[in-house]
Amino acid sequence: MSRVAQAGDRVLLIDRRHKRHIVTLEPGRTFHTDRGVIPHDALIGHPYGRQVHTHLGEPFTVLQPSIADLAKAVRRTTQIVYPKDSGYILMRLNVHAGARIIEGGTGSGSLTMVLAHGVMPTGHVYTYERRPEMSALAARNLAKVGLDRYVTLHVRDIADGFVEEDVDAVFLDVREPWLYLEQAQRALTGGGFFGALVPTTNQVSALLAAMQAGPWYDVDVVELLLRRYKPNPERLRPEDRMVAHTAFLIFARYVKMSVGADSAPAP
Amino acid sequence: MSRVAQAGDRVLLIDRRHKRHIVTLEPGRTFHTDRGVIPHDALIGHPYGRQVHTHLGEPFTVLQPSIADLAKAVRRTTQIVYPKDSGYILMRLNVHAGARIIEGGTGSGSLTMVLAHGVMPTGHVYTYERRPEMSALAARNLAKVGLDRYVTLHVRDIADGFVEEDVDAVFLDVREPWLYLEQAQRALTGGGFFGALVPTTNQVSALLAAMQAGPWYDVDVVELLLRRYKPNPERLRPEDRMVAHTAFLIFARYVKMSVGADSAPAP
Amino acid sequence: MSRVAQAGDRVLLIDRRHKRHIVTLEPGRTFHTDRGVIPHDALIGHPYGRQVHTHLGEPFTVLQPSIADLAKAVRRTTQIVYPKDSGYILMRLNVHAGARIIEGGTGSGSLTMVLAHGVMPTGHVYTYERRPEMSALAARNLAKVGLDRYVTLHVRDIADGFVEEDVDAVFLDVREPWLYLEQAQRALTGGGFFGALVPTTNQVSALLAAMQAGPWYDVDVVELLLRRYKPNPERLRPEDRMVAHTAFLIFARYVKMSVGADSAPAP
Amino acid sequence: MSRVAQAGDRVLLIDRRHKRHIVTLEPGRTFHTDRGVIPHDALIGHPYGRQVHTHLGEPFTVLQPSIADLAKAVRRTTQIVYPKDSGYILMRLNVHAGARIIEGGTGSGSLTMVLAHGVMPTGHVYTYERRPEMSALAARNLAKVGLDRYVTLHVRDIADGFVEEDVDAVFLDVREPWLYLEQAQRALTGGGFFGALVPTTNQVSALLAAMQAGPWYDVDVVELLLRRYKPNPERLRPEDRMVAHTAFLIFARYVKMSVGADSAPAP
Repeated sequence: MSRVAQAGDRVLLIDRRHKRHIVTLEPGRTFHTDRGVIPHDALIGHPYGRQVHTHLGEPFTVLQPSIADLAKAVRRTTQIVYPKDSGYILMRLNVHAGARIIEGGTGSGSLTMVLAHGVMPTGHVYTYERRPEMSALAARNLAKVGLDRYVTLHVRDIADGFVEEDVDAVFLDVREPWLYLEQAQRALTGGGFFGALVPTTNQVSALLAAMQAGPWYDVDVVELLLRRYKPNPERLRPEDRMVAHTAFLIFARYVKMSVGADSAPAP
Repeated sequence: MSRVAQAGDRVLLIDRRHKRHIVTLEPGRTFHTDRGVIPHDALIGHPYGRQVHTHLGEPFTVLQPSIADLAKAVRRTTQIVYPKDSGYILMRLNVHAGARIIEGGTGSGSLTMVLAHGVMPTGHVYTYERRPEMSALAARNLAKVGLDRYVTLHVRDIADGFVEEDVDAVFLDVREPWLYLEQAQRALTGGGFFGALVPTTNQVSALLAAMQAGPWYDVDVVELLLRRYKPNPERLRPEDRMVAHTAFLIFARYVKMSVGADSAPAP
Repeated sequence: MSRVAQAGDRVLLIDRRHKRHIVTLEPGRTFHTDRGVIPHDALIGHPYGRQVHTHLGEPFTVLQPSIADLAKAVRRTTQIVYPKDSGYILMRLNVHAGARIIEGGTGSGSLTMVLAHGVMPTGHVYTYERRPEMSALAARNLAKVGLDRYVTLHVRDIADGFVEEDVDAVFLDVREPWLYLEQAQRALTGGGFFGALVPTTNQVSALLAAMQAGPWYDVDVVELLLRRYKPNPERLRPEDRMVAHTAFLIFARYVKMSVGADSAPAP
Repeated sequence: MSRVAQAGDRVLLIDRRHKRHIVTLEPGRTFHTDRGVIPHDALIGHPYGRQVHTHLGEPFTVLQPSIADLAKAVRRTTQIVYPKDSGYILMRLNVHAGARIIEGGTGSGSLTMVLAHGVMPTGHVYTYERRPEMSALAARNLAKVGLDRYVTLHVRDIADGFVEEDVDAVFLDVREPWLYLEQAQRALTGGGFFGALVPTTNQVSALLAAMQAGPWYDVDVVELLLRRYKPNPERLRPEDRMVAHTAFLIFARYVKMSVGADSAPAP
């Protein structure tokens, strides 16, 4: 038995040249390609994981998109977070069903989508963006994949602070994250997870310098490199070129260093 | 406000030399270190995210462990999956609350734990291990962190097939994954996510060769490198040494290539 | 004082868009660009390390090319060896003035050029190529940069053995280097340096397997990754993309393992 | 035929555990190990590339060391330059027999040795070091390998300028290379090669900022990563750990940007 595509589903169609198309199924509509068309009704009610053909005989593979597929396919005007980075962010921020997470810098909503996918159905993502049109774009991107119900989009300058309190994690994807450490700290639960993403070493230095003053513990700076191989068993070798850099990731835990009487117990 | 530690919690205690200790809180018990002791009762009922001191005045930071912390800390007799890899696996297998996932090769249960954390509270992980004592070790590791309720541990040779059907994803962490492709395929839903982890290039070649014969689509071979930086803002530089290799990761989708009458629609 | 360009020199001209042009200076000739021309006579007799302008005012920087510049600029029909790899080969084969080196697989002569530059003026490179037209191309490339006098080009199948004996190093850049280990061994001096370059892991395995049988010692397999940074002091970061793979390099020393009477001395 | 070891040679002896020993052969002396002794006279007059045994039967392999072996084995109190970096430096500074090169920061003389090996027999290296005891150590290291005749060691603060003029290349391996750009420029021939090595990103930024003001062209910032593989043909895989960082390398050409009348020629 296989799962069956339904009206409203986001569907991944991959053509012979491995180009990926993501469409939302609607009865009566048609998917147009330069090699023929496929009526949505030829997909709705039929199982995933098979090939269909356009009226010109061109094959397309029909799949449910992964969250990595969806996050890469958002309509965007900003740099997105790559799966190699967002997967690691999920691990380091301890994202799980039920978690409450603040994101500073919604952008096109690509990472927002990954976080929402990670906290659903019982958690929530609170994301902040100063630019109304950018927030609106992210809202549309989230709605398309049905994850908008797990996200609150704030159009607000994070310099004015976050609205939520006692959240499990704060992630900053903004140009000058060092300006908002105090806001992050006020929003976080004790021991909460902090993360930030910046592209340049100068920004890493500026953020680290600012964190030294504050209640940030177990500070960790990393970058991830993903190397892809040509899947040829007789001639296995890495691809010729790769993405050499997306961003540096900085993680820390929020720890109140002031120590009360109860914390130096007699045995 | 901050979250409060409770009896039964797994707690992460980090000492001044950044050594990490994970303990389960039990009223009346004591955490012993070579620099003094901390009674669990000095932690139970108190918030996370602060420092406590042993009776000798040695500070420890009290934190809720992330899933990355827990997965690294399992009692183990096998190689574990690193967070850089398991985070990416979460993305590529589309792990989310509600998903049903088969893992071939339980080992010490480290990746099982990460998968269970990803599918809870409504999904489930079915994990297979031939060696009873290894499966028992994994069971204990999962119980300690309260994730056992989301996992079924099979002591069974996967050559005999998987019990479950129509699962969302199958992940193989075994020496010869190419022997079990047919079993994986029978267990997967149409379009389901397949992944495998192997340490050597010879294994990658053997797996790719076996996959060429079968219904595997969008085959992808990758490796991830994580580079850590010394968090010194005035002297920012990568660490001197790094983990150079953990494993190669292979991903694919299960696609039935045989095409029925309904899949070549007239427009 | 600065060095002065002379007729016959290979000169590197770099335009405003950082495109690199290498020309051989000849009195009376003209360098044509899509932004005007520069007479060679405006360069001959004038110092290196300055800017000149075309008759349309377009600036070009006039430099002596490095061996890395020259090796990258050869006319070629084959893959060339990158400077990151050839520099390391120089180190590991102990290339120096006076050394005698065999290269199996001349190709376009790019690595031949680097080796000749390394052994001149008193050493020599003996390079072998089965395809006459390829050898002729390499000969022209070497002549252009004045390094042909340090190179003997053999048009010959290396299966038939190398002509030279007692050489300091043998380097194989051929598809199946494992077929020629015996030939390499017969040509090498005792303790001589062996190196090979192959693009795939399957070739590495095949070569290693063949070497296990023979007198090869201190076998080392490496790959080099070069990551380039955007030279912006305020926004320092790696380039977005990089070359992910050129080749694997295998090195070893030729050691006769059979041990005569004199090698187990009484103290 | 094989080359024969002679009194005064530096010899590389590798034991069964792959530990490397470098000794200078002297008639009548003895090489002591914890597994027996080898008289130098058992090596002098005998060929390289074979195994000898101690009086206790322990085998040692006898080899001529490469320049990479020698540079790694210097007696040192400072960080040395790794072969992956020094090989690339050779390429980018166009080091060859006959070149004249200035090195700022002699340190233990490890890179000096590689440069001398590259410019001999007709070139010369001029190396500067402020600390007399460090310069003396480097002098001893160079003498041991017979390369001292190609090197002039200055004990002198490079803030006071370099003595030589019109050199082909200047390489700076000092903490604050940006302070000495003017000195480098005065010593270089027009179009000469400039290089520097620094471990931190902050130093890269400081150097790049200083270079923007000056006559530096074609500025390039790179780092090299060397990944080593376990040489097992049936289980080929990278080593578990690697050197993650040694240094950033910065290269440029010295170009006088002011343009005289002769540089804008009429065609």
